[in-house]
Amino acid sequence: MAAGNAGERTKANARVEVWFEFASTYSYPAVARIGPLARAAGVELAWRPFLLGPIFAQQGWKDSPFNLYPAKGAYMWLDVERTARAHGLPFRRPSQFPRNGLHAARVAMVAAAEGWCEDFATNVYRANFADDLDIADQAVVGGCVRDCGRDPEAALAAAQSPENKDALRSQTERALERGVFGAPTFFADSEMFWGNDRLESALARAAEAAGD
Amino acid sequence: MAAGNAGERTKANARVEVWFEFASTYSYPAVARIGPLARAAGVELAWRPFLLGPIFAQQGWKDSPFNLYPAKGAYMWLDVERTARAHGLPFRRPSQFPRNGLHAARVAMVAAAEGWCEDFATNVYRANFADDLDIADQAVVGGCVRDCGRDPEAALAAAQSPENKDALRSQTERALERGVFGAPTFFADSEMFWGNDRLESALARAAEAAGD
Repeated sequence: MAAGNAGERTKANARVEVWFEFASTYSYPAVARIGPLARAAGVELAWRPFLLGPIFAQQGWKDSPFNLYPAKGAYMWLDVERTARAHGLPFRRPSQFPRNGLHAARVAMVAAAEGWCEDFATNVYRANFADDLDIADQAVVGGCVRDCGRDPEAALAAAQSPENKDALRSQTERALERGVFGAPTFFADSEMFWGNDRLESALARAAEAAGD
Repeated sequence: MAAGNAGERTKANARVEVWFEFASTYSYPAVARIGPLARAAGVELAWRPFLLGPIFAQQGWKDSPFNLYPAKGAYMWLDVERTARAHGLPFRRPSQFPRNGLHAARVAMVAAAEGWCEDFATNVYRANFADDLDIADQAVVGGCVRDCGRDPEAALAAAQSPENKDALRSQTERALERGVFGAPTFFADSEMFWGNDRLESALARAAEAAGD
């Protein structure tokens, strides 16, 4: 009985932080997959939108490394399509890459605070990587909000508040301080896991840590 | 019966090329794992030692990207240790990184031609990443040859022949032409798979292609 109670308590504490950026290709399958997997594992998710731009700039990159290093980029498009297919996710290589995810990230901050970030992020990634829509366009972002059953005008207005802009800026600084260098990045019990390939490991680590 | 015969024939044709470089951290678990997995899957391995140095130089890097980009490097050491542990492989972070694998790669060319490359490569990776030995040292490389039951002097002499040096140079150029940008890289049915994380996918692709 005591063990059973301990088990229940720990499940409630198991948590993974999901750090993501909307231009990130591998964040698309990760965000599409993590919700159901986390719920099945009894792991809570904390959504952490941030911007890779300032982090890449610190490494001297003014563009995506997939554009700066063409061989790596060519492989990435092959591999991310293969990955999406393996998970049954629709994929179309976007006609523009990377797209500016600033507005969408600001809305994601609002969505994370209000508890609808998983749906919103899933919609934005699908717009970018399956429907080839320009997620820098406020109308596209608004459509992703509407598809969550939320009011686009209210969300876009909240996203543009100085406090919200500051919050996203701080969160990106926090990512840099914690050693985040790409997306998606997961933290489970303070341990870092990078990439869609480490999603399952992060969830397992969180469940294990909660059971300690 | 016909299907059974077809199955046997295809198994004999299933093949994966293993492109590896001795300084590459993730090549250690990949090379340690691939032999038994390939034999279980009925997939033949073609060993392709090459050098990352000239490939990195083309991207403007004069050092390992794990040294040039410290956040990525810090994560890599955490993750490669975690990966080794998950596969039951001994691991010790080398006191020097990257180590010069030129001599060992030349010997690997000889070993690949003579059919003892899997054992040799496994020994060199263990020396570098488990025993913290300097694989740039001919005595260390010789020890790895001896542990394969081969004559170190003969192997080192063959490795230093002009023809063998040229063969390694050509193989590295071939890697560049085929879009190889890191190690380990696998080719299965002309399809590229990069990283220890894609080892199983490469073997599955080879088996599937042979069955087409």
